[in-house]
Amino acid sequence: MKAIRYAVAALVAAALAGSSAAQTARSKVDAKAPLTLKSQGSLFVGGEKKTVSAPAAGPIPAQSGEITVNQMYVQYQVPMKGDQHVPVVMVHGCCLSSKTWETTPDGRMGWSEYFVRRDRAVYLADQVSRARSGFDPTSFSDVRSGKTPPAAMPSILSATHQIAWTVFRFGPRFGEAFPDEQFPIQAMDELYKQMIPDLNATLPANPNPTWTQMAALAKQLRGAVLMGHSESGFFPEQAALIDPSGVKGIVSIEMPCETNLSAQQLATLAKIPALIMFGDHLGDIAPGGAPVNWADAFKTCATFVEQLAKAGGDATMMHLPALGIKGNSHMLMQDKNSDQLAELVLDWLDKHVDTKKAKRT
Amino acid sequence: MKAIRYAVAALVAAALAGSSAAQTARSKVDAKAPLTLKSQGSLFVGGEKKTVSAPAAGPIPAQSGEITVNQMYVQYQVPMKGDQHVPVVMVHGCCLSSKTWETTPDGRMGWSEYFVRRDRAVYLADQVSRARSGFDPTSFSDVRSGKTPPAAMPSILSATHQIAWTVFRFGPRFGEAFPDEQFPIQAMDELYKQMIPDLNATLPANPNPTWTQMAALAKQLRGAVLMGHSESGFFPEQAALIDPSGVKGIVSIEMPCETNLSAQQLATLAKIPALIMFGDHLGDIAPGGAPVNWADAFKTCATFVEQLAKAGGDATMMHLPALGIKGNSHMLMQDKNSDQLAELVLDWLDKHVDTKKAKRT
Repeated sequence: MKAIRYAVAALVAAALAGSSAAQTARSKVDAKAPLTLKSQGSLFVGGEKKTVSAPAAGPIPAQSGEITVNQMYVQYQVPMKGDQHVPVVMVHGCCLSSKTWETTPDGRMGWSEYFVRRDRAVYLADQVSRARSGFDPTSFSDVRSGKTPPAAMPSILSATHQIAWTVFRFGPRFGEAFPDEQFPIQAMDELYKQMIPDLNATLPANPNPTWTQMAALAKQLRGAVLMGHSESGFFPEQAALIDPSGVKGIVSIEMPCETNLSAQQLATLAKIPALIMFGDHLGDIAPGGAPVNWADAFKTCATFVEQLAKAGGDATMMHLPALGIKGNSHMLMQDKNSDQLAELVLDWLDKHVDTKKAKRT
Repeated sequence: MKAIRYAVAALVAAALAGSSAAQTARSKVDAKAPLTLKSQGSLFVGGEKKTVSAPAAGPIPAQSGEITVNQMYVQYQVPMKGDQHVPVVMVHGCCLSSKTWETTPDGRMGWSEYFVRRDRAVYLADQVSRARSGFDPTSFSDVRSGKTPPAAMPSILSATHQIAWTVFRFGPRFGEAFPDEQFPIQAMDELYKQMIPDLNATLPANPNPTWTQMAALAKQLRGAVLMGHSESGFFPEQAALIDPSGVKGIVSIEMPCETNLSAQQLATLAKIPALIMFGDHLGDIAPGGAPVNWADAFKTCATFVEQLAKAGGDATMMHLPALGIKGNSHMLMQDKNSDQLAELVLDWLDKHVDTKKAKRT
């Protein structure tokens, strides 16, 4: 029964995405050519002051005062023709940073530069509490100083290589790759180096400040496409539910979708073109091998896409194997065919988002 | 007596640095012009596998396996004429990330892009255990699960706004700026957002893996200038003491210097041209106002420069007020005259490092 529902969903996906585009999508970028930028830089979105009593640490004595928390670090590049397209904000997943979108583990150009070379301004955000965005250390320092018990300390999400192999769907079990695996398995150690502790448990849960800052960034840019992956896959939708005014398009890659949104929430999201992407082998992990069931996640998103369509939305489910594109992992932006997949997204953006660009100004 | 020694050191500094260059140094870059890159990307240097028993966290169950630790994240840009100069590796200080070198708090071009526009390949490294380099979470998770007591948890160095104001020498006490202050005080909140928890206490102390990876990166690049600031100010020297083969030049900005190096260590460092930079107001913080005494730090570096010179080295002390450049803070790469200071460094590199470039290949 599960298999049947899955096959139906895949057929629906193929019909929605249009398989001819997929088969002709090829890299349109010369990675060796010089890259000319109109501008680049980095900035923070949001951030609040918090009064703390910080214990002594290293050369710094015990101190009372303020720190800044919940700011989101964003690094951007604007190509010469960037104003011809809606900018794209890319947000990484669990246990990762914006490195996700840069040079791939096997040393090829990542999606961030690829999109820039295809005339999109790209904004890479480190999730709040991760990487260059920093985190609020108070709950750890309080345990160390005895103010609170160890159990009060937020858990740090740290995934092992073993967990990554199956959750990211490189093969059915650790060390074994799918025969048609698209992830550059030989460069696996370079992916493992990208994996850093995830401190999202230190954040207020709802709304996660990353959602708030994503919505604020889209508004600040006077319109942006929000792209999320895995842990952040549904963040574009969450951001739009906080403030849809800047969100001109949504690209959600490989995550479970919310299926219990209210009619009002669905009406809000239905005004924004949305692309949902999934790779291959969703149900092919050995039983008990991964804590995430991607086939189930896919089904929630198929339901969500139907809900959006019923609410009048422009929602596309792009399930890659249904388009004849086989072997893609959860880290599809780093897979060997990542250029081809970038072209699929760009083609979708051209047809569903940039046509409405005139409305921006 | 202290004041006299300080004055003498300043005179020595002026004589060594040559004040004429300082007075004529002006921005040679049009920040609004398009920027053309030969290439860009990111990579990791180093990293080891560590076997852990990770407790359950979020969606991930308790797991035994490997994680990767001590890798150093590096982001780079190579300009079209990059091969005409020795590449520059920039490493940030305490409680900061590579954001230090990017867009300044008041929105101007930072040193990373400035150096790229002046034809240097630039490599920005996030210190091991910081930002996109990640950190080893084991000692925190062990406390949370009760395996070790709270006191076994490493301290997290988190500086308040109040501490930053005086340690970074924006004025004599919090909220009060020096009359000639060069830091863009009006954009202070943007600096506070750059300040993130410093987890260096989780690292093996000697050698700090960042030193090891800096030396390895310099070698991998077949020669590089290593630049450090504050906490990392002496890291270039520490890296060269691990492996000097790739270190073609050292720029050390605002830190205490080691003055107890052995004759052999000094002989190693004396083979590498070194520039030591200090800003203004080193002794002008109100008593008790900052945990770091910059006037004392300056003196250790004046001694170190003398030691290098006696060992036959090419060491330059650049004390900015002695060159007639007043009001610079500890964050001199973000000060209002940051372009001018970049030109001072570039001029020094031209004269002391790039002349020896022929030796690289």
